[in-house]
Amino acid sequence: MHIFITGAAGMIGRKLTERLSEDGALASKPIDKLTLLDVVCPPKPETFTGKVETIAADLAASDETAKAIAGRPDVVFHLAGVVSGEAELDFDKGYRVNLDGTRALLEAIRAVGDDYRPRLVYTSSIAVFGAPFPPAIPDDFHLTPLTSYGTQKAIGEALLADYSRRGFCDGVGIRLPTIVVRPGKPNKAASGFFSGIIREPLAGEDAVLPVAETVVHTHASPRAAVGFLVHAAALPRDALTPRINLSMPGVCCTVAEQIASLRRIAGDRVAARIRRAEDPLVARIVAGWPRNFDPARAKSLGFRADADFSAIIRAYLEDDFKG
Amino acid sequence: MHIFITGAAGMIGRKLTERLSEDGALASKPIDKLTLLDVVCPPKPETFTGKVETIAADLAASDETAKAIAGRPDVVFHLAGVVSGEAELDFDKGYRVNLDGTRALLEAIRAVGDDYRPRLVYTSSIAVFGAPFPPAIPDDFHLTPLTSYGTQKAIGEALLADYSRRGFCDGVGIRLPTIVVRPGKPNKAASGFFSGIIREPLAGEDAVLPVAETVVHTHASPRAAVGFLVHAAALPRDALTPRINLSMPGVCCTVAEQIASLRRIAGDRVAARIRRAEDPLVARIVAGWPRNFDPARAKSLGFRADADFSAIIRAYLEDDFKG
Repeated sequence: MHIFITGAAGMIGRKLTERLSEDGALASKPIDKLTLLDVVCPPKPETFTGKVETIAADLAASDETAKAIAGRPDVVFHLAGVVSGEAELDFDKGYRVNLDGTRALLEAIRAVGDDYRPRLVYTSSIAVFGAPFPPAIPDDFHLTPLTSYGTQKAIGEALLADYSRRGFCDGVGIRLPTIVVRPGKPNKAASGFFSGIIREPLAGEDAVLPVAETVVHTHASPRAAVGFLVHAAALPRDALTPRINLSMPGVCCTVAEQIASLRRIAGDRVAARIRRAEDPLVARIVAGWPRNFDPARAKSLGFRADADFSAIIRAYLEDDFKG
Repeated sequence: MHIFITGAAGMIGRKLTERLSEDGALASKPIDKLTLLDVVCPPKPETFTGKVETIAADLAASDETAKAIAGRPDVVFHLAGVVSGEAELDFDKGYRVNLDGTRALLEAIRAVGDDYRPRLVYTSSIAVFGAPFPPAIPDDFHLTPLTSYGTQKAIGEALLADYSRRGFCDGVGIRLPTIVVRPGKPNKAASGFFSGIIREPLAGEDAVLPVAETVVHTHASPRAAVGFLVHAAALPRDALTPRINLSMPGVCCTVAEQIASLRRIAGDRVAARIRRAEDPLVARIVAGWPRNFDPARAKSLGFRADADFSAIIRAYLEDDFKG
């Protein structure tokens, strides 16, 4: 099996590459080749024994995508994209990468013809939804994004569904909840504090909580997100059609519950490193985000969330914590 | 007021042009200029006393759109598009006209800058919805089109919402029900019989009904559709945001009720010209279409459907019947 990953140098891309290398197989079929693409050259997985090709290219602005697709990968993980904040700040770049890039990938697949129909796993986002919301967003809730990023992801979902319906590819779109705990340095994303209030205290550093502890949100660990991707790649085609874009399950909890989990796992002294300093701008942005989902279809298709927020913290400690 | 209409040579485009010419004003402001664009040169309205510019151009493939927009029209009616059947048969053309054409129009508006923010009325379609459906499709039902046309319309809605949110334009998307009675010759559209079973018998000709009389569908007359467009153009901006794409109200009825209306208006002899000959292909296509809506938002914003199916037939007799 030949697997192609776009956005392979990103956090999820690297973890997915590692997972596939360790498994050595997908859906019980051995993996013999990985093609890894990103704007910066993706690292080669150390443990993988098959063939690896790495490509540094912009999805929308080069013919490298078409070349990679001409190698007829069996599964394509399309993770590449400009993130939410950047897509909002740079309108043209967001549309070029997230919309034109996705369309270029789909067109490259269609251009192969000759009954080539790869499984295409597309990472969408809960940013396709915009307030106001019902208490739990059902699977048939409309997409009314309140960001350009969410709009581009919603358009990607629509294209994926149409290209799949027409038989050009075999798509699955998965809407990821907010990923925590993200390893690495704090970033400027409005959602960054969700990782920060766990990661920084565990590293012996102070963290700022800019919203009220009553804020409710839905999360998945990077490990669970990679699990969703691998599960999506292995789903039988007829389990999905015609509605191929799915909200993923996650852990829905308050910030207070997240802090309580941290306290249980790491103690009072660590939890005390969280400083409350409400930021009205961040609070307003977060108020527009989805809180809770009823992802009945994804659950019935076997997608599994982390057990609870403590499991999310433990996944971070096992997979990423260096302390 | 300067008004720009794309797709001005189409059936709805011509009727909208006539209506605006007769009214001489929109939202109580006098209309002094009409710019009319289509792939074939649109006819000049005879009754209009202001300035008229007609343009024969392809929205996606020329810079005529940008030139028309540089004239800073106050209101843009974007009706141009490849219809459902053609978009399904010619994948590239559908995306080029319906997606790239719409994007080119939005980009032309954005390029003006300088606080230019026209009202942009976008004709979407109930084809953005795909089966299975609830008994009445609510305003917050997800868009899961089952045609490339429906996909392109759904993407147009998403772009319109984002360009409006960013302040580049002031959009309203209206999802039109199936328009009946269409004047003119029978066409090959799967929905063509809905007009045919009224129009042909009234003209003394036989018509074929290819589906069961129990089929339920939602309709608007061309006159009501033009009314929706004009109403959308005059809506106050803050009545709409942030959810600017609206399902229009229509007349929901069975085919049997439509035939009963025809019989009441034109008599038994006319209604007897409908011949039942079920076509399994058409029946299957129609089974995938939306049947009924609960367009609460559009109703609360003052959009008004025809009173009943008899009113739809009478509108045809008054506006288009030559017999």
